[in-house]
Amino acid sequence: MPVNAVGRDVPSEINGVRMKPFAGVGKTPPEGRRAGSLIRMQPSGRSKLVDTIEEVIRKVGLEDGMTVSFHHHLRNGDYVANMVMKTIQKMGFRNIRIAPSAFFPVHKEIVPMLRDGTVRRIEGSMNGPLGEATSYGEMKETAVLRSHSGRVRAIECGEIHIDVAFIAAPTADQYGNLNGVDGPSACGPLAYAMADAQYADHVVAITDHLVPYPAHPISIFQHQVDYVVNVDKIGDPSGIVSGTLRITTSPTRLKIARYATEIIEKVALRDGFSFQAGAGGVSLAVTKFLGELMEKKGIRASFINGGVTKYVVEMLHKGLVDVVFDGQAFDLEAIKSLKEDPNHIETPLAMYGNPHSSGGVVNMIDVGVLGATEVDIDFNVNVNTHSDGLLLHGIGGHQEVAAGTALTLITVPLYRYRVPVVRESVTTVTTPGEVVDVVVTEYGAAVNPRREDILEALRGSGVPLWDIEDLMKKAYSICGKPAEPRTTDEIVAAIQWRDGTLLDVVYRVKRD
Amino acid sequence: MPVNAVGRDVPSEINGVRMKPFAGVGKTPPEGRRAGSLIRMQPSGRSKLVDTIEEVIRKVGLEDGMTVSFHHHLRNGDYVANMVMKTIQKMGFRNIRIAPSAFFPVHKEIVPMLRDGTVRRIEGSMNGPLGEATSYGEMKETAVLRSHSGRVRAIECGEIHIDVAFIAAPTADQYGNLNGVDGPSACGPLAYAMADAQYADHVVAITDHLVPYPAHPISIFQHQVDYVVNVDKIGDPSGIVSGTLRITTSPTRLKIARYATEIIEKVALRDGFSFQAGAGGVSLAVTKFLGELMEKKGIRASFINGGVTKYVVEMLHKGLVDVVFDGQAFDLEAIKSLKEDPNHIETPLAMYGNPHSSGGVVNMIDVGVLGATEVDIDFNVNVNTHSDGLLLHGIGGHQEVAAGTALTLITVPLYRYRVPVVRESVTTVTTPGEVVDVVVTEYGAAVNPRREDILEALRGSGVPLWDIEDLMKKAYSICGKPAEPRTTDEIVAAIQWRDGTLLDVVYRVKRD
Repeated sequence: MPVNAVGRDVPSEINGVRMKPFAGVGKTPPEGRRAGSLIRMQPSGRSKLVDTIEEVIRKVGLEDGMTVSFHHHLRNGDYVANMVMKTIQKMGFRNIRIAPSAFFPVHKEIVPMLRDGTVRRIEGSMNGPLGEATSYGEMKETAVLRSHSGRVRAIECGEIHIDVAFIAAPTADQYGNLNGVDGPSACGPLAYAMADAQYADHVVAITDHLVPYPAHPISIFQHQVDYVVNVDKIGDPSGIVSGTLRITTSPTRLKIARYATEIIEKVALRDGFSFQAGAGGVSLAVTKFLGELMEKKGIRASFINGGVTKYVVEMLHKGLVDVVFDGQAFDLEAIKSLKEDPNHIETPLAMYGNPHSSGGVVNMIDVGVLGATEVDIDFNVNVNTHSDGLLLHGIGGHQEVAAGTALTLITVPLYRYRVPVVRESVTTVTTPGEVVDVVVTEYGAAVNPRREDILEALRGSGVPLWDIEDLMKKAYSICGKPAEPRTTDEIVAAIQWRDGTLLDVVYRVKRD
Repeated sequence: MPVNAVGRDVPSEINGVRMKPFAGVGKTPPEGRRAGSLIRMQPSGRSKLVDTIEEVIRKVGLEDGMTVSFHHHLRNGDYVANMVMKTIQKMGFRNIRIAPSAFFPVHKEIVPMLRDGTVRRIEGSMNGPLGEATSYGEMKETAVLRSHSGRVRAIECGEIHIDVAFIAAPTADQYGNLNGVDGPSACGPLAYAMADAQYADHVVAITDHLVPYPAHPISIFQHQVDYVVNVDKIGDPSGIVSGTLRITTSPTRLKIARYATEIIEKVALRDGFSFQAGAGGVSLAVTKFLGELMEKKGIRASFINGGVTKYVVEMLHKGLVDVVFDGQAFDLEAIKSLKEDPNHIETPLAMYGNPHSSGGVVNMIDVGVLGATEVDIDFNVNVNTHSDGLLLHGIGGHQEVAAGTALTLITVPLYRYRVPVVRESVTTVTTPGEVVDVVVTEYGAAVNPRREDILEALRGSGVPLWDIEDLMKKAYSICGKPAEPRTTDEIVAAIQWRDGTLLDVVYRVKRD
């Protein structure tokens, strides 16, 4: 196994497919041409409605071994992936590959399908039970994890060929125009599904809100959708959007957020600046603090890229920002704003951050505030596994934002439950240290030595500055040296860098 | 040469490329997969600005024989195609293929490039001088004409591979987000250029209105645009939009429009119906008359597909229609409405009517009112050539609308300048009679015998009904039998049906 640019031993093949080792950010230029989906002729008649999921599966000609895809805008409220996969299971299909943008705890119903041969592998984010099952070796083949836009890259270049995309559609008309801003299961954008709609050989929309033609606004257009199935419910609203996203009340996390805000103020805050927003507790707090600071100082941002919440919407309404780019809405205020405000723009994921495109939004962002399960003294970040080795989270947009933004902050507590977060070496590398600028903890911040400019800007600030190794020592002095995860040498998952190269692998965890 | 389904002798090859004969509407199903554009990695830095057109041509690596493309939203006010082509000529490139969505009289500056070897052929609509020059044999290779969406089909399947797309952008930011609704050269949608942006190997935006990032609204997104060139002027507003599009005042044409309106009323007018609008004098009059009728009868349309003018915008504002689909704006009112009204939706041309997609807007239209240079007793329509054989017009969306809509009316005067319009056989077949339902003249209408339902609905109406042959005889009795065009047996242009099959060819016209 070759050692890659972050010092990890990685195989040259995963699932029998060659994978190049990670060679450093931007060091593996793309080759060739994009893939092409099946050319279809429009169905005759003026409706693409099909009565049942079973019938549509027959119509598209699903076969054993094929790849199906789902998007995750309905998050933990999604019914569609379970509904479709159970039908596929019931119909007796085997060795299906699933390429979701992400699975959530609600998708634990798919776990038994790993065991019974319905599903051979999942290529996509797995938050919770499916990741855990994968860690324990329950998946026949090796999982492949990609960032949100890395997934789009893989679809575009043909690395993931989707045979059938099943698109949960909060609103649809009978000819396949879709949006996510109306209906009982409204989720906001449908941005994660846009690549699926464009590149899959067959595209099926599943809706619970069929409206007269033409549905509008239109996120996914009729000419990319082959069939529409109207079902009772595509999701549980309480799992789709948060009624009230709350800013952290933890003093530790508020302290981290204050330090992060001060770093941003010293390094990047200026008229026309831009930042990446998110829905984590610290991220929400930073968004709120930044908004207050901007208002006080009379500073206006050019755009916020999100992960959109009411805090971002408030800034848009107050005129603190010109444009909101939205790949994912986290609450009802975000959905309403996307629907009504022309300066709130849905961004296709290819636009958001596909590295193999003519340039994503992330390239234009000044500040990104990201989380981590672990960071190490090389500034490598782990967001996928916990320190016990269990694969419990997807990559999300972590890699895109870190690679794209001018100032990438990793906001973490020094330790969690007496396990150090700042460590000698992360269990899994999700994002390489070369694109991480500052690690911010409740004890202060460690600046990547590559970024002398930031160090300079922070001298004399209220943020205590640390050498990253000293931060690690501090964590170890409190918690002790962390235990190694109890793993075998069996690889259960591959972690790709957004360009498709192999950054790390995840090993099987021994059951207690 | 085989005879095709409309009885025309057509060669099996054009420009050395095999072309299937037209076999009837929907009779040639597509095969294979879509093409893929070159995968790129984003340019480093936060700007894609390049100083001059010459420099950008060097950067994209243009070579002799390559294909460049342009869109025609700036219509007869476009400066970009001339500017780029003159630079290409000056730089000494040879044998370039141009694939514009359409050329206009203003592009006569390209005529000398047909002669001097800069350009080997044009595949696209040619309105005026370039078409005339082609007719006289001045193009080295054979021109290929496609409908608007047929062009998209050809780009998607790789029949037209675009090396470099030059996109005139009325508004752009330095990272390539583009729109057509702002700036001194505002044109409305950029819908014709969307396939170019998606499928070309290199995409260059040329603007005269560079705005701070992010430009918005966004019609063409940054991740598809490689370079941006800022020039003094991309167009002449007086040629881009009509200050005042006027409804015809000709009594003959008003009579045709009234007959057409009555036919629509009898056959298709009902709550939720839909129609195709245009900018021709008769079409404008029908739109106006229909609007008045709907208001009087309390009927509301589901959508209008356009070709958008102030008459359509007025209907939207009056609540006479839910949604306007817009592929092309003809006046300032249309541009303003597209910018401001969320129910006025820009439609990618693939969505408008690509026959090899999962279904276009045209499939959902109830009524289409189209023009013609000639129609014949088989209901075949010519919009490309005049009766003297000269190729002076593109296909536009004629084929899409005729094939898609439930009721297709061809509105024509019986004769023009004492040349019969209704004839035994059209000089060139643009749209086959099998998708034409009614020919409407100032003398009355001829219904295609395939449409007994329409004949039935019109009995007892105020529209005199004719057998199409009798209409022809009437025309001949007034004008005499039309003279044959003075052509040679040299093929100068191919007319494709929207599915890529060969419908007809255009022959070289002898100079006087």
